[in-house]
Amino acid sequence: MAERLEIRLAGSGGQGIILAGVILAEAAGIHEGKYVCQTQSYGPQARGGSAKAEVVISEEEIDYPQASQPEVLLCLSQKACDTYVFDLPPEGLVIVDSGLVPQLPTTKAVGLPFTKIAREQIGREMLANIVALGALAVLTRVVSLKSLEAAVLARVPQGTEALNRKALDAGVQAARRYLKSKPEKT
Amino acid sequence: MAERLEIRLAGSGGQGIILAGVILAEAAGIHEGKYVCQTQSYGPQARGGSAKAEVVISEEEIDYPQASQPEVLLCLSQKACDTYVFDLPPEGLVIVDSGLVPQLPTTKAVGLPFTKIAREQIGREMLANIVALGALAVLTRVVSLKSLEAAVLARVPQGTEALNRKALDAGVQAARRYLKSKPEKT
Repeated sequence: MAERLEIRLAGSGGQGIILAGVILAEAAGIHEGKYVCQTQSYGPQARGGSAKAEVVISEEEIDYPQASQPEVLLCLSQKACDTYVFDLPPEGLVIVDSGLVPQLPTTKAVGLPFTKIAREQIGREMLANIVALGALAVLTRVVSLKSLEAAVLARVPQGTEALNRKALDAGVQAARRYLKSKPEKT
Repeated sequence: MAERLEIRLAGSGGQGIILAGVILAEAAGIHEGKYVCQTQSYGPQARGGSAKAEVVISEEEIDYPQASQPEVLLCLSQKACDTYVFDLPPEGLVIVDSGLVPQLPTTKAVGLPFTKIAREQIGREMLANIVALGALAVLTRVVSLKSLEAAVLARVPQGTEALNRKALDAGVQAARRYLKSKPEKT
């Protein structure tokens, strides 16, 4: 992993973006012992129903906790994608829910149907955030799947562990299928 | 409210400190339309089981999202109190769980038995964080009780709404009793 990696998760309120940010941060910070800052900002725009969480993961102590130029952007809405894609560097990675973001920003963007997978394979649309985290871990390798699963299970409501584990695995499998289908990928 | 108020919540892992930070931020940011940044940091120290969340609430857009000098400190462990009390300004407010922090840092610190209240009045020790939020709202007036309740109910697991509402109210009542017992309080 690079010395400092900034990840931004964005979408609409109710999609579990904040929880996804907390889980990703705890996977890296508690389970892998990295230095992590996790931030969410609210303001008058939060009334419009948008949600954004940022995770900064570093091998060293973090001075400035907010993402200044995220290298990874996960978008669960077209609006989030349209808003934040320009903050990425050219080599940045955009991961989107292809069912909710019909207009991909570039041909390099990775589109996977997180919400559809959550609905059809897990029976719970609201687990799209966990599906997305599984895919993000495979695509970025920023945390191990073991750490991510431990962080997920520590945060989700009691009694939903099996469903969440299944959601995580569905995201992992979707991302692995994507990588296999892209032989030019490094 | 002051133009910018910084609040730090600290304790041990598993006490619901991070969730309390998210709820407080959403009460102010989503339900009251303030500008809010909410941050948690993890690092090698997180393995030691400590947890810390910071909420910066402002009438204006926030440039620097991390608490530089919190005016309000909520501590659910002696260790957290011993670590963070020195960051407060002299007029800062320290609120502690009096059952878990036997050694109050100053005579002005507010000690209330959040965990005992949660255990004895609600029957769920793990709701001490919600009890504490209710008290914090009364003692600081940083958010209205209506906004705080809405934010709590939006975040807690389905089926636990009534218990959480009861926990919030128990914290509110405890803080009101405290204020009544302190006639010199302004």
